[in-house]
Amino acid sequence: SRSLNLAVIPGDGIGQEVVAEGLKVLSAVLPQDVKLETKEYDFGAKRYHATGETLTDADLDALKAHDAILLGAIGDPSVPSGVLERGFLLKLRFAFDHHVNLRPSKLLPGVATPLAGQPEIDFVVVREGTEGPYTGNGGTIRKGTEHEVATEVSVNTAYGVERVVRDAFARAQARPRKKLALIHKNNVLTFAGHLWTNVFNKVAEEFPEVTTEYMHVDAATIYLVTQPERFDVIVTDNLFGDIITDLAAAVSGGIGVAASGNINPSGAFPSMFEPVHGSAPDIAGQGKADPTATVLSVALLLRHLGYDAEATRIEEAVAADLGERGDKPARSTSEIGDALAVRVAG
Amino acid sequence: SRSLNLAVIPGDGIGQEVVAEGLKVLSAVLPQDVKLETKEYDFGAKRYHATGETLTDADLDALKAHDAILLGAIGDPSVPSGVLERGFLLKLRFAFDHHVNLRPSKLLPGVATPLAGQPEIDFVVVREGTEGPYTGNGGTIRKGTEHEVATEVSVNTAYGVERVVRDAFARAQARPRKKLALIHKNNVLTFAGHLWTNVFNKVAEEFPEVTTEYMHVDAATIYLVTQPERFDVIVTDNLFGDIITDLAAAVSGGIGVAASGNINPSGAFPSMFEPVHGSAPDIAGQGKADPTATVLSVALLLRHLGYDAEATRIEEAVAADLGERGDKPARSTSEIGDALAVRVAG
Ligand SMILES: CC(C)[C@H](C(=O)O)[C@@H](O)C(=O)O
Ligand SMILES: CC(C)[C@H](C(=O)O)[C@@H](O)C(=O)O
Repeated sequence: SRSLNLAVIPGDGIGQEVVAEGLKVLSAVLPQDVKLETKEYDFGAKRYHATGETLTDADLDALKAHDAILLGAIGDPSVPSGVLERGFLLKLRFAFDHHVNLRPSKLLPGVATPLAGQPEIDFVVVREGTEGPYTGNGGTIRKGTEHEVATEVSVNTAYGVERVVRDAFARAQARPRKKLALIHKNNVLTFAGHLWTNVFNKVAEEFPEVTTEYMHVDAATIYLVTQPERFDVIVTDNLFGDIITDLAAAVSGGIGVAASGNINPSGAFPSMFEPVHGSAPDIAGQGKADPTATVLSVALLLRHLGYDAEATRIEEAVAADLGERGDKPARSTSEIGDALAVRVAG
Repeated sequence: SRSLNLAVIPGDGIGQEVVAEGLKVLSAVLPQDVKLETKEYDFGAKRYHATGETLTDADLDALKAHDAILLGAIGDPSVPSGVLERGFLLKLRFAFDHHVNLRPSKLLPGVATPLAGQPEIDFVVVREGTEGPYTGNGGTIRKGTEHEVATEVSVNTAYGVERVVRDAFARAQARPRKKLALIHKNNVLTFAGHLWTNVFNKVAEEFPEVTTEYMHVDAATIYLVTQPERFDVIVTDNLFGDIITDLAAAVSGGIGVAASGNINPSGAFPSMFEPVHGSAPDIAGQGKADPTATVLSVALLLRHLGYDAEATRIEEAVAADLGERGDKPARSTSEIGDALAVRVAG
């Protein structure tokens, strides 16, 4: 019999609530013969305040033993900005070499969008996850004085760019429209821009069926609101990916339904799946959070582990649930989770 | 009698056409006693191909003599990406210390927006123009090999950040709503982010009437499409400013009406005014380009030089013109310019 050994990190704010629903739906959709084991970890603001720890070497060792990681949300106003982001979220992405940060954007029928009309949005962003301006390179001199200088260094390697570009081409190749856009700012960031562009053009030769285009990141934000239907697969740098995936989420139903995977395709380390939204401390503990983004992250997790049929069942259940929301009264976090669990089981 | 001595840089693509209309409206609006002198410069793709030059020291000396600079657009597909951007546009901004890059976003009545509803959009972005990831710092090793490493260094100084933050506070203070948002990514880019945040908080103490908020750049893209009315003045870094002002233009009527100023508030060097749009080579020479963004850039130029009443007349003329477009047949570039010239003169 098969088994699925999951690390669960509820985290802060609404994290606990949405992860509970994610697990509920996971249990409901998994085939009988799959033994689900979960172990909960206490990362986040509470542990940081109690111990000063964000993510230790021992923690990383423990996490390594799992097949995958499901995360709710990490972050709390009581912790100085950057501490949990750099000390936990980014540390984990870097330690487990999560270089493919996968963020699908699909506007489902019946879902509200701030855009006029109901454009057909169905694309996926492949964001690089281990390089660029996220490396923590840089520093500060004369801190706090009028002569302070602070630098941030974006580090880009042929190795790091090529593997994520190749992943994106393979994804584009597997989709009906077979389109891939590279988003960068190669007219200004010429060093990194030329590396990205050259690698992209080189790998493109191996995928003659994929139609490619290049777009500056500033222009891309325009197209994301005026012609979102033009995109199929997008590949981009860590920071540009951070920015455009929030915009993509906003136009395709909001961050309440945006899922993401921090993937190590080699399998050398477990991949991590999380909603794009944050910990939303203002609504935490009230049963108001929409668990849909977490449930869709569970679908990404299942697909990553080879449970394609189960992933599709979740996605169809979510689509049906969203399509029927209409003007009905708002449901609680667990009511939405219950409804999705019933659908995937049925 | 007064004089206005203008450097005019039509540039590439539609630049020539839109600048002609900008000058037409400028002539029509200027008081009789102001002697307008213009000198045209041939920067752009043509000169680059003919001479290999983008902007020489002698050019900079010549430009220095003017009260201000009006630019159409620079850029052509025949020139490798980055050459004119770094060699002309950014070189000029850096040489003339254009640290306040001013980009107003106002959705005028009757103007189409990709957003549902007709949100009230009226904010201005103060983008830093001489630092951040735009400095050209960085480099490449092992170029073209599988071991290539390319870096980009974002350079941020207390001096550079404080002056632009101070400018933004003063602008916020002068507006009815008196709101200022700092946009950065201080939870990841912690070196630069802390510098920006600390300087911002320090300067805020001098402007107790201004309401401030901080927002991550990724979250800001969400608010720009879901709650654009929340913004009044935004201050941000060079790259984030580049990205969000294109998005801001897209939601508030498109880059056809987005104006910008590259301002040196000290007056040590002339400031430069230009539409946010590019050279649009696909429609160049056909009289199809909308000169409105250039005309609005002329208004920014006039306000910068103290011609407030004239600037307002142009803005009102543009608002009236846009408000009456409705379903009328499209007019040519010069027809729109003519109509605006008549309005501002009347
Ligand atoms: C919280 C932050 C470190 C993170 C990022 O910038 O990657 C978040 O915005 C995201 O997109 O997952
Ligand atoms: C053309 C390019 C150098 C420029 C920039 O990135 O600043 C443009 O996008 C702009 O916003 O003025």
